[in-house]
Amino acid sequence: MAKSKTPITTPAPLIDLGEVIALGVPRAVELWLRAEPNHRRRAEQLSDLKSDQARRVADLLTGPNARELLAGVDPVTAARFLLRLAPVTAARLLGLLAPEEAARALRETPQPERGQLVDQLQPAQAEAVRPLLAWPPESVGAWLTTAHVSVRPQTTVAQAARQVADHARLSDRSPGYVYVTEATGELCGLLSMRDLVVAPGDSPVERAMNPAPVVVTAAEDQERAARLLADHHFRELPVLDAGRLVGVISADDVAAILEQESTEDAERQGGSTPLEVPYLQASPWLLWRKRVVWIAVLFVAEMYTGTVMRAYEDELATVVALSFFIPLLIGTGGNTGTQIASTLVRAMATGQIRLRDLPRILGKELATACLIAGTMAALALARAYSLGVGHQVALTVALAIAAIVIWSALLASLLPLVIRRLGLDPAVVSSPLISTLVDGTGLIIYFTAAKLFISALA
Amino acid sequence: MAKSKTPITTPAPLIDLGEVIALGVPRAVELWLRAEPNHRRRAEQLSDLKSDQARRVADLLTGPNARELLAGVDPVTAARFLLRLAPVTAARLLGLLAPEEAARALRETPQPERGQLVDQLQPAQAEAVRPLLAWPPESVGAWLTTAHVSVRPQTTVAQAARQVADHARLSDRSPGYVYVTEATGELCGLLSMRDLVVAPGDSPVERAMNPAPVVVTAAEDQERAARLLADHHFRELPVLDAGRLVGVISADDVAAILEQESTEDAERQGGSTPLEVPYLQASPWLLWRKRVVWIAVLFVAEMYTGTVMRAYEDELATVVALSFFIPLLIGTGGNTGTQIASTLVRAMATGQIRLRDLPRILGKELATACLIAGTMAALALARAYSLGVGHQVALTVALAIAAIVIWSALLASLLPLVIRRLGLDPAVVSSPLISTLVDGTGLIIYFTAAKLFISALA
Repeated sequence: MAKSKTPITTPAPLIDLGEVIALGVPRAVELWLRAEPNHRRRAEQLSDLKSDQARRVADLLTGPNARELLAGVDPVTAARFLLRLAPVTAARLLGLLAPEEAARALRETPQPERGQLVDQLQPAQAEAVRPLLAWPPESVGAWLTTAHVSVRPQTTVAQAARQVADHARLSDRSPGYVYVTEATGELCGLLSMRDLVVAPGDSPVERAMNPAPVVVTAAEDQERAARLLADHHFRELPVLDAGRLVGVISADDVAAILEQESTEDAERQGGSTPLEVPYLQASPWLLWRKRVVWIAVLFVAEMYTGTVMRAYEDELATVVALSFFIPLLIGTGGNTGTQIASTLVRAMATGQIRLRDLPRILGKELATACLIAGTMAALALARAYSLGVGHQVALTVALAIAAIVIWSALLASLLPLVIRRLGLDPAVVSSPLISTLVDGTGLIIYFTAAKLFISALA
Repeated sequence: MAKSKTPITTPAPLIDLGEVIALGVPRAVELWLRAEPNHRRRAEQLSDLKSDQARRVADLLTGPNARELLAGVDPVTAARFLLRLAPVTAARLLGLLAPEEAARALRETPQPERGQLVDQLQPAQAEAVRPLLAWPPESVGAWLTTAHVSVRPQTTVAQAARQVADHARLSDRSPGYVYVTEATGELCGLLSMRDLVVAPGDSPVERAMNPAPVVVTAAEDQERAARLLADHHFRELPVLDAGRLVGVISADDVAAILEQESTEDAERQGGSTPLEVPYLQASPWLLWRKRVVWIAVLFVAEMYTGTVMRAYEDELATVVALSFFIPLLIGTGGNTGTQIASTLVRAMATGQIRLRDLPRILGKELATACLIAGTMAALALARAYSLGVGHQVALTVALAIAAIVIWSALLASLLPLVIRRLGLDPAVVSSPLISTLVDGTGLIIYFTAAKLFISALA
C-alpha cells in the first residue's frame, strides 16, 4: 500500500484562521478544523481574531463545522467570540449547537446580552436552553446532557436494545445506560449495556434493571458528581430534579470538572480568589479585584505583628541581635505550616481524608513536626553561633524555632478540618494565611523564650 | 410495578468486610462489592484489615470478584494488600487480573518482593507483565492497555466491524477505534466507530482510515498523553514503541492521571516533595523525608536575612521602630508573589500559558502589581501613623512596601517560566520559595529606603 514509512505524528497545521478568512468559503473552515484538532489551540486562534475577522469567520460557520468549533472550545472563548458578532449571527450559531452546548456558552455571557441572545433563538431552542441556564454555575445542572435513552418499565429488553441502536445512529455519543422511568419522569432504575445483552429479550426491563442506582440532583455541587463518577468508575450518572429524571452527567466531563476544581483550589491556596476565566483573558483590573481582598485582609491581620514588636521594644533595643533572627524564625514557621496545610487540603479535596481521621492526622503531623523541629533547632544553633551572638541568644533561637515549628504544625493540621467543619472550602487555608497566623504568634513565642533565657532581659 | 416511592439514593452498605470474613464464602464478597460500589471506600476497608483478616479475605477471592476488587482500588492499596499474603496467594490473585492491572499493583510493590511475585506468576502472565513493568512510573507505558482491535490494511470494513463486535463480547470495555497495522506491528492508521458505519462494507480499511492519527510513545510523560486526550476529546490514543503499536491509553484514565499530577503540583507548591502514597498511608518518617529537604534548603537560603539585618544593625539600634514593620513588609511581599506564582504555575500546568506569552504576562502582572502597590502603600501609611512612628518612618514604610510588591511581582512572574525553560517543573516555585527570595531582598529595599528618607540615618 502507498504509505510513507516516516513516523506518524501530530500533523503540523496546514492552514490558519487568517487563510480561512482569505479563502472565504465554509470548506476552508473544515480544512482548518482537520489541520488543527486541538481544541485549546483552536480557542487561542479564535481569541486572537479582531472583531471584523471574527464576523467573517462566523459567516463561514454554516453547519456541523460551527458545532465542531464552538462546542469544542472552552465556553469562555465561545462566549467572547459570540459577543463580537451581530446578535442575529450569534443566535444563528447558537441554534446549530445542542441545547446544553448553547447553554454552556451562554452561561459565560454577561447580562443583558445573555437574555437578548436567548430571546433571538428559535422558540423551541429557547425553551430547551432556558431551564438549563437556570442551574447555578458549578452545579450538576451546568453539565447536564439531556440526550439519553429512557424507556417505560414494561418495555421488553429487546425493544430497549433497539432504542439504543437508534439513539447511537442519531447521536454522536453512545448511551451509557438505559434509564427506566414512569410516564411522570420518575426514575425506576437503569440497565447497563451488558444487562441488555445478558437478559432474555422478551422480559420487561423492570426485571433486569438495577432498581437502586446511584443518582445525583441537578442542584448539587458538580464536584460531588465528578467524584462519584470517578470513584465508582461509572460511565454516566442519572440527574434528578424534584424526583424526575432530567438528563445525565457523563464521565466525559469528569476531567474538565476536576481540573476546574483543582485550578480554583490552587488559586485559593495561593491566597487569591479564583479567577474563573482563562488567565490570558483576565485584565489587570480583574486580577487586582481577585487578589486585593486577601492581600488587604492578611495585611490587616499581619499588622498585629507590629503591635507585638512594639510591646517588646525594650528587649529589641537591649539585644539588637534578637531582631536578626526574626525573618528566619517566622519564615520557617510559615513554611512548616504551609507544607502541612497544602498536603491536607489536597488530601481533603481528593476525598482521601475526612473529619473522622482527625486523631490519626494529628498524631502523624505532631510526630513529623517533632522530627522537623529537632532538625531545625540544630540548624538554628549552628546559624546563631556563625553570627556570633553568644550562647544565650543561640539557645533562645534554637528553642524558639522548635516551639514555632510544632505550634505551626498544630495550627496547620487543625485549620483545614475546622474550616471544612464550618462549611467553608478548606482551600482558603492558604500559604499566606498560615504565614500570617504564625508570624504574630511566633514572635510572642520568640520573645517569651528570650525573656526566659537571656539574662540581660530578666 | 412493585417499586417503592422513596427517593433513590446511594444504598447504605448492608455488609462490611468483617461480616464477609465471618460468613467465609465467596458469595459474601460479592454481596459486599454490590453493597459498597465506591472503590475508595472499598480501599479504606481493605487497608484497615489486620494481616490474618487480609489472608482470610484473600481466600474468598476466587474469580471475577478478585478483579472487581483489586483492579478497582488504587494500586498502592492493592499492593499493600498483596504484600500481607503468602506469595503464592498473591500470585494467584494477580493471575486473575489483566496484565496491565497486575502491573499497576506490582509497580507499587517494592523490590525484591516485586520480582519474587512476578516469578511466581504463570509463565504466560509473567511474560505479559514484565515488559509493562519496564515502563517508568508516570510514563504513558504505565497506563498502557494492551487489549485493542487491530486489523491489516487489506481487511474489509465489514470484517473489521465483526472483529469489533467479537471484541466487545469478550472484553469489559468497548473499543475506541480500530487500529490498522502492518504485520510488523507498524501503525498505518485508525478508524473510528463512525467510519466503520459510514464506509462501504466491502472496501478495505486502508481507504476509510485516518492515515495520520495523533499518537504517543510509551516512554513519554503520562501528563502529555492525558492533555492530548482531554484537549482533542479523543476516546483513546495509540501508544507506539519503536514505531510499533503496543497498546492504547484510554480517556477513562485521564481523570486519574490529571488528579495525580494536580496532587503532586499542590504538594510542590506547598514546598514539599510529592508524597506519592495516599496521605493516610504515609508514616511520620516518610513525611519528614519528603518535607525536610525543602525546609532545610529554604532555612539556609533564609539565613541570608540574618546577614542583611546584621549589616543594618546600627540603623536598627538608632531607629528601633524600623523593626516593627519587618514582618508586615516581608509578609506582604511574599503574599503578593505567592498569589502570582500559584496562578501562573497552574495556568502552565493546564497548558493555558507558554513561554511565548511572557511579554503579555509581564505586562499584565506589572500593571496589576502597580494597583496592588498603591493599595498597600495607602494601608501601610495608615498603619504607620496608628503606631505613632513619625512622618519619616511612615513614608519609608509606604514607599518600601510599594517597591517590595512590584519587585516580588516581577520575580514571581518570571520565575515559573524561567524554571520551565530550564527543563524543571515550575511547581517548585512554591509559596515558601517565593517568600524566602522576597524576604532578604525586601529587607535590602526597606533599609535602603530608610537611609534615604530618615534624617537620623543619613
